[in-house]
Amino acid sequence: MSSPIRVGIIGGAGYTGGELIRVLLRHPGVTLAGIHSRSNAGQPLYKVHTDLLGDTDLTFTDTLPTDVDVMFLCMGHGESRKFLEATHPSPSVRIIDLSQDFRLDENGKRPQLNGAPIVYGLPEWNRDDIKKAMHVANPGCFATAIQLGLLPLAKEGWLAEAYTTGITGSTGAGQSLQPTTHFTWRADNISAYKTLTHQHLKEVRQTLKALNPLVDPPVHFVPWRGNFTRGIFVSSTVTCAAPLKDIQELYRRYYQGHPFTHLSSEPIDLKQIVQTNKCVLQLEQAGDKLVVHSAIDNLLKGAVGQAVQNMNLMFALDEKAGLDLKAGSF
Amino acid sequence: MSSPIRVGIIGGAGYTGGELIRVLLRHPGVTLAGIHSRSNAGQPLYKVHTDLLGDTDLTFTDTLPTDVDVMFLCMGHGESRKFLEATHPSPSVRIIDLSQDFRLDENGKRPQLNGAPIVYGLPEWNRDDIKKAMHVANPGCFATAIQLGLLPLAKEGWLAEAYTTGITGSTGAGQSLQPTTHFTWRADNISAYKTLTHQHLKEVRQTLKALNPLVDPPVHFVPWRGNFTRGIFVSSTVTCAAPLKDIQELYRRYYQGHPFTHLSSEPIDLKQIVQTNKCVLQLEQAGDKLVVHSAIDNLLKGAVGQAVQNMNLMFALDEKAGLDLKAGSF
Amino acid sequence: MSSPIRVGIIGGAGYTGGELIRVLLRHPGVTLAGIHSRSNAGQPLYKVHTDLLGDTDLTFTDTLPTDVDVMFLCMGHGESRKFLEATHPSPSVRIIDLSQDFRLDENGKRPQLNGAPIVYGLPEWNRDDIKKAMHVANPGCFATAIQLGLLPLAKEGWLAEAYTTGITGSTGAGQSLQPTTHFTWRADNISAYKTLTHQHLKEVRQTLKALNPLVDPPVHFVPWRGNFTRGIFVSSTVTCAAPLKDIQELYRRYYQGHPFTHLSSEPIDLKQIVQTNKCVLQLEQAGDKLVVHSAIDNLLKGAVGQAVQNMNLMFALDEKAGLDLKAGSF
Amino acid sequence: MSSPIRVGIIGGAGYTGGELIRVLLRHPGVTLAGIHSRSNAGQPLYKVHTDLLGDTDLTFTDTLPTDVDVMFLCMGHGESRKFLEATHPSPSVRIIDLSQDFRLDENGKRPQLNGAPIVYGLPEWNRDDIKKAMHVANPGCFATAIQLGLLPLAKEGWLAEAYTTGITGSTGAGQSLQPTTHFTWRADNISAYKTLTHQHLKEVRQTLKALNPLVDPPVHFVPWRGNFTRGIFVSSTVTCAAPLKDIQELYRRYYQGHPFTHLSSEPIDLKQIVQTNKCVLQLEQAGDKLVVHSAIDNLLKGAVGQAVQNMNLMFALDEKAGLDLKAGSF
Repeated sequence: MSSPIRVGIIGGAGYTGGELIRVLLRHPGVTLAGIHSRSNAGQPLYKVHTDLLGDTDLTFTDTLPTDVDVMFLCMGHGESRKFLEATHPSPSVRIIDLSQDFRLDENGKRPQLNGAPIVYGLPEWNRDDIKKAMHVANPGCFATAIQLGLLPLAKEGWLAEAYTTGITGSTGAGQSLQPTTHFTWRADNISAYKTLTHQHLKEVRQTLKALNPLVDPPVHFVPWRGNFTRGIFVSSTVTCAAPLKDIQELYRRYYQGHPFTHLSSEPIDLKQIVQTNKCVLQLEQAGDKLVVHSAIDNLLKGAVGQAVQNMNLMFALDEKAGLDLKAGSF
Repeated sequence: MSSPIRVGIIGGAGYTGGELIRVLLRHPGVTLAGIHSRSNAGQPLYKVHTDLLGDTDLTFTDTLPTDVDVMFLCMGHGESRKFLEATHPSPSVRIIDLSQDFRLDENGKRPQLNGAPIVYGLPEWNRDDIKKAMHVANPGCFATAIQLGLLPLAKEGWLAEAYTTGITGSTGAGQSLQPTTHFTWRADNISAYKTLTHQHLKEVRQTLKALNPLVDPPVHFVPWRGNFTRGIFVSSTVTCAAPLKDIQELYRRYYQGHPFTHLSSEPIDLKQIVQTNKCVLQLEQAGDKLVVHSAIDNLLKGAVGQAVQNMNLMFALDEKAGLDLKAGSF
Repeated sequence: MSSPIRVGIIGGAGYTGGELIRVLLRHPGVTLAGIHSRSNAGQPLYKVHTDLLGDTDLTFTDTLPTDVDVMFLCMGHGESRKFLEATHPSPSVRIIDLSQDFRLDENGKRPQLNGAPIVYGLPEWNRDDIKKAMHVANPGCFATAIQLGLLPLAKEGWLAEAYTTGITGSTGAGQSLQPTTHFTWRADNISAYKTLTHQHLKEVRQTLKALNPLVDPPVHFVPWRGNFTRGIFVSSTVTCAAPLKDIQELYRRYYQGHPFTHLSSEPIDLKQIVQTNKCVLQLEQAGDKLVVHSAIDNLLKGAVGQAVQNMNLMFALDEKAGLDLKAGSF
Repeated sequence: MSSPIRVGIIGGAGYTGGELIRVLLRHPGVTLAGIHSRSNAGQPLYKVHTDLLGDTDLTFTDTLPTDVDVMFLCMGHGESRKFLEATHPSPSVRIIDLSQDFRLDENGKRPQLNGAPIVYGLPEWNRDDIKKAMHVANPGCFATAIQLGLLPLAKEGWLAEAYTTGITGSTGAGQSLQPTTHFTWRADNISAYKTLTHQHLKEVRQTLKALNPLVDPPVHFVPWRGNFTRGIFVSSTVTCAAPLKDIQELYRRYYQGHPFTHLSSEPIDLKQIVQTNKCVLQLEQAGDKLVVHSAIDNLLKGAVGQAVQNMNLMFALDEKAGLDLKAGSF
């Protein structure tokens, strides 16, 4: 067995930082070399992530991890770019960025770091590029759920336009205290936000256009806030008159060999995949309208799990290493 | 003050029956003359609806209420028709049916009872007809939320097609124990059901077509089960390039004089209206796409509240009598 | 009918302020003469309490309501005392204070305002005093639930000591954003706080000692935070070897004539009373141990509802006026 | 590495059966040799436990697993005894029973199977016995949480009597549809059940008496139903005037070397341990009253996880094998 990958985490005190620690502590091919958090430097990890009590005595640091093979950036949007500009990490350190800072092409090409492109990291779309990537921009949570629902259609040229509604858990809004994450307000409540303007639409459309440049299919997306903590459920309605079994066959073929994304022949539900890195999909049709349902855990397949999946691919590990997680199930 | 309306309830032990009792016990113009429940005959109401402890000593009966002015039918779908055929209520007794049995026209005209039409009871659509009605078929819960969102557009001829997603609380599924109403399954879970085929679409399209016979606008509807007990939140995406302020003005004008339906200039949320008979609406636009959000309490404006509103209209009472309910708010 | 009571509310933007507005808007004997909120002055009430959209066009003011018969103080603990010292309300204005500032005797007697005692306002304990009171200190929410469970035992001299656990909804923690009211943390979570030291114990013991000065029964109280927004459920275990039916008879006799507190012969649950001003009690016994369960809505019987009940008593209105609220039920 | 343990599961379609499959599929030292479910024979596991889609193609069988090293019995209470009497498993097959059928001594000694005692399986109490056991009776979920909270006190002779309240998630009530597991009823609700008479008290007192035969400390236990799916939180109030730091030292010493049970110096909460096999404890003291809080996941440390922990001990594997589970955390 080769020596473990040395990992640094920048922004280890937030939700994604914490979840990444949880996953990597149990990853067979990884050593946690440094977990950076300015505000918690010197504290044991379990003072912030209390579930880690008994799991580790590691502490947060305020010095940047050195001598690492890869750094995960788990900071707020806009912070990753500033961090990289300020710290100039060595060209030999791979970067996996969980923010939205580098997801979009700039002037028609991928953003660069130390001369290497920062590859968009959706393995079901561009696994071979990721395997060769030095750096990865990890997709957004809604973007992941929507794209996994539409990729096979788009690739086949069967996608003209999508009407999409999605619902997300409160962890998607992060750790900061806001009126819309106050328990009293959010419990038993549903609301819409960023109607038709959610920032993840840009990365979704970038991928769909790359697959289908002539059509450039618009996605009309209504995001909802849900009264639960984890998970994303998305339903996209499209026009597609092909026989349902042909479409199902298309999806099965597309996702064959992808270990985390599964077409279900039965109705799906959110808790089927919460606490896992899976995406489940279901197709339903009436007349020429097709509905694609997709469900992911926003913190795992929608963030940390996919980031580790990308790391596994970049370092030629088993794609599932450290990610065969027990579902929460109830 | 005139003498109180004498009310009978058939099917008083279910969710809608119980909620109707709660509302009518506090209604200033009503006497509860008989509450029928075969399975609970002789029991005090509070043995079934435990919140009524201390409110009333009334009991369930297994004889049909006689000498009543109006009967509310709170039975399962299909049961109302059977009940009326088996019991032949006197022509002088008005019927307000909460099932779906008489919502749809039959052979192009309203279903009849004792020679009088059973009027579809959506006051924001046909209040004048309801005022003159002998009998009313109370709309479905999703149907109410969707129609209140689309009526002004349809009336103006601005509605060609709608892509609609809605989410409903567990009370919509009734009192019977089912796998999808098991707490362990439903807590923190989201799922779709009756995709594109929900039975309420028929009454929605019947209304939309009546307003706009040439277009007969299709509604592509994806219903979701939510992890809460009460309420419906619906977002409909349509193509409408009119300036947003003109559309808002259209909605304000349409609902002027309707005491329960309000266009909000601020973001809306489900708990704003839960435990009330209100519907709140919000409009958002991007390019030529318009999204209409609407929220109701499925048991009140979506069932019992609207039924009492219809009763108030039929008996020339204040439309709001007994329905000025304190919001649950949290 | 006499002219309506003119009411002022100080601190109208918080949870209790909002709930009080909701109740009083529907109270038949009251006019809302002024609702004070420094931070929201000039705003319509519905901008803060969004459920009031369509109910009222009243606005918040930053001048103190004048020409009122009664003022409700809905401010944070410590703020009521400061407010009264700074503003010197006219001796003719009655004060109902929802904070904890005046609940405890000072130097063995009730705190005074303008020469009149501020009476502790628990109607099931001292209704006659409240009827004659100029001012009232409204009890704490946990204090109400615990006292209503123990009063009959204490009065009878059957209470030596109580082991009590209670659970409260998030509204008990108020509107401010705190880590323990973050949705992501609180959803599906249970935790203890202020173990054995909760501030409400002082008012509980003050009442119990007044009933039973020789015993001065201790109450060992473990409060829990619950993952719901409204309600308090309390179980107190005491030693009491009297036959259960004698104890039940004692409770029935004690609460006879009190319209909101009911002994149930069936198992009780929290949602039986949420959204109402009721308290339900249940007694269970094994050997010489007796358990008293009690449930209230912390915002109503535990705060605003009881405050209005006290107002009704002080102004010789029907004790239930404005408080016959439909249960939330689901 | 030695060859994997061959495991059979009887009753694989219920909650504990499903959770056991999830854990054992990821256990490094185990092969699932047969999963019995009469009602689902021939079905793939993922038809019942839908989260297993993509994890395994195993199917349920209706023949008993043969050629196994150990069988887990995941059936209803009373069914394990019947099953063993009817099927006479080979003396070489170890049995780990998750029901309550064999937890209590019979006539002062452990129940027997094929001439070997069925050892009560609480590793923090009798790990050495479990290591040598042929068969194990797995403790109840509440019994585990209560005992782990009281064992150090009892062993030290510092426990005279305990007043205990506990709250449990809905999975504790199993998969069958009941009024108290209906989502509409249970959401946001709290209620008590089996007050002072819960069946787990017997095994708790059996252990406490064994530690402290002269005292035989009574436990007055009030169990509550919580509005969440997983987890148990328990607070026990006892009289103990020893200095808090001595008591903390006692607990730390007692649990040293036990990998799953941890005394926390910070406040604990339920979600800290949900989805893990851990128990966290916290001690608080006021005067001579001591409160011990304990939290476990009822399906893991309270059932399946502890059963696997017992298996690991019986087969001389690492006690934590397969049980280093990522916390659910949110």
